[in-house]
Amino acid sequence: MTFRDAASFHSRVPSFPKRISMHTNHSEAEQQFDLLVGRFSKPIDQALKRFAWPKADAPARLLEAMSYSLFAGGKRLRPMLVLAASEAVGGKAAHALSVAAAFEMIHTYSLIHDDLPAMDNDDLRRGRPTCHKAFDEATAILAGDGMLTYAMEVILSNVRGANVATRVGLELARGAGIEGMVGGQQADLEGEGQAQSLEKLVYIHGRKTGALITAAIVSGGLVGGASTGEIRKLRQFGCEIGLAFQVVDDILDVTSTAEQLGKSPGKDQAANKLTYPALMGLEKAKTYAQELVNTACKRIKDLARPEALTTIAQYFVARTH
Amino acid sequence: MTFRDAASFHSRVPSFPKRISMHTNHSEAEQQFDLLVGRFSKPIDQALKRFAWPKADAPARLLEAMSYSLFAGGKRLRPMLVLAASEAVGGKAAHALSVAAAFEMIHTYSLIHDDLPAMDNDDLRRGRPTCHKAFDEATAILAGDGMLTYAMEVILSNVRGANVATRVGLELARGAGIEGMVGGQQADLEGEGQAQSLEKLVYIHGRKTGALITAAIVSGGLVGGASTGEIRKLRQFGCEIGLAFQVVDDILDVTSTAEQLGKSPGKDQAANKLTYPALMGLEKAKTYAQELVNTACKRIKDLARPEALTTIAQYFVARTH
Repeated sequence: MTFRDAASFHSRVPSFPKRISMHTNHSEAEQQFDLLVGRFSKPIDQALKRFAWPKADAPARLLEAMSYSLFAGGKRLRPMLVLAASEAVGGKAAHALSVAAAFEMIHTYSLIHDDLPAMDNDDLRRGRPTCHKAFDEATAILAGDGMLTYAMEVILSNVRGANVATRVGLELARGAGIEGMVGGQQADLEGEGQAQSLEKLVYIHGRKTGALITAAIVSGGLVGGASTGEIRKLRQFGCEIGLAFQVVDDILDVTSTAEQLGKSPGKDQAANKLTYPALMGLEKAKTYAQELVNTACKRIKDLARPEALTTIAQYFVARTH
Repeated sequence: MTFRDAASFHSRVPSFPKRISMHTNHSEAEQQFDLLVGRFSKPIDQALKRFAWPKADAPARLLEAMSYSLFAGGKRLRPMLVLAASEAVGGKAAHALSVAAAFEMIHTYSLIHDDLPAMDNDDLRRGRPTCHKAFDEATAILAGDGMLTYAMEVILSNVRGANVATRVGLELARGAGIEGMVGGQQADLEGEGQAQSLEKLVYIHGRKTGALITAAIVSGGLVGGASTGEIRKLRQFGCEIGLAFQVVDDILDVTSTAEQLGKSPGKDQAANKLTYPALMGLEKAKTYAQELVNTACKRIKDLARPEALTTIAQYFVARTH
């Protein structure tokens, strides 16, 4: 495994804090987020229904497996980030809907493949059988492949303006690809039970979760008509909150009950996985996540309408599951 | 499984021939093809080396697995089709190289996933251990995912002109996707040991192999600057020779020795797979393939430089492995 730019990536995020800072009021952050979900959930649901393979001439079982996984009731965080980023730079929601759907498809494909026996070998996802359990392994592999490919089709055939479509397609491919999500998944698999360092953690998480989150935010900005300077801010914001998201995931694995988490807690620890709490202690990990989000939010405060993005970022550290 | 357009697809290919027609001289067709390989192999090799993840910041093992499979010495038929189609409409080879590389990546990803234990469960590919045997299953799944995603990145960041890049990206996504290759693979898996019909065979093969071949040809035309009418001809040509390719694959599984084929013959029969020879008899299947290619070649004879495409098409029926 190479870590060529782990150091440079890490230099772009705030250094590890020495003191515990004031945390945002968690229940308030969750309330704000719930209001935002209320505003975004309808357009996102409609977008998913509209763009998820309408009238596709494909084997019924393949489409069923894809729909089974896409409509399994996720939090839709990535589509929310697309819409919020577009709104932040003054874009119209209508122009961002296809991109929002495409990013949820990419996220879903990654879950289907991640759950496979050769990968994380999970039987349950959001309380239901995983795709390969509900169907079969071959269908799950092909459903993932098909959804990844279809997400690209959705973008290239729906985003207005070939220039923007090409740039959004590139963001998605890079965020989901070998220097992004897929590279992070590979590094994560290799990292289990190995020597632990903060540099390696940032490398893995920056890619496994952060890259696609960042790509969703940048893509929302692109369809919203962001300037070069605004794209730069959004990208940095994405790196920071993406990292915070994973730090909090690690924290919740330690602190949550199974009921809150919707899956067995302590799984990372049991697998001897590299985690932030294991590396820096629980309290310092919490502070680190909050610092990342605070820095990120300051960065975008001068955009036209940063409120939705800020709400999502604060929720990233306030969430309990 | 739905077959909504199987009938319409079938109506576009020549009807099943009643008499045995004259075959092209096979050894001459193979000689012509060898000359073409001599002309195209160097630019294709250079393109693959140039576009296959240069300086990618990704886990070394992932890149090794991807390179292991991409540089396993395939026939490079899809890159040849891209270059030949571009040449046919008067395009420059230099503008088609990234597209040629991307289509070989897509083909390679499909082989990696096809070979997985849950799919065809093959241990050998071109005489070497398959990707999941040489590495491991998780790495093979991610290598396939990564290569599919990277192929899109290659196109979107290298094809000249955002309009053309978008159209080529769409061709690739549709050819490789649920209405193309992935849909065909699913239908093929479901079709094993089931009721046999010509309509179903055409449905499966038109997608499993034909769709990506057609997309490669159309994409070559697009980067070569083809007109709408030329694209239409190229697409029809691709449908016909793609189908012929699969018919011949089925024939070779029956008639070849293991040495000629580079893998065990008779495998389709053993798996009770739907094949053309099983359905229409060996001689009629041979004639059908030749008729398809002859019709296809007539269709493109008025293009600026159709010779290379014609040579590949004639090789499709003349090949012995």
